[in-house]
Amino acid sequence: MCEANAYMLIEEKESLIMEAVDLVQPEEGGIRLISIFGDQKFIKGHVHALSLVDHKIYIKED
Amino acid sequence: MCEANAYMLIEEKESLIMEAVDLVQPEEGGIRLISIFGDQKFIKGHVHALSLVDHKIYIKED
Repeated sequence: MCEANAYMLIEEKESLIMEAVDLVQPEEGGIRLISIFGDQKFIKGHVHALSLVDHKIYIKED
Repeated sequence: MCEANAYMLIEEKESLIMEAVDLVQPEEGGIRLISIFGDQKFIKGHVHALSLVDHKIYIKED
């Protein structure tokens, strides 16, 4: 499986916000993360960077 | 390997712009895509959505 972990970047420090993310969908005012288990989380932010071989999604707050 | 293919979304239609993308990095005026083979492409756009289990990165022009 090729899910990734989502990290919030705050002042260059990364903090894990969700594991095993499959879908990232744009939504009014931010993005919705949906894991392979169906867990959902809405984040006021945007995708800043990806490192897929390392299974990492970096998000920054808007 | 967990790379993904990058598609540009134009009026809801997807067009493949790069295969086997590993890294997406923010850059002045857009994003840089880097494949697992080291190919690079600069795009005036942003990550719109992800569908990682399907190996898809959706990009929209800025």
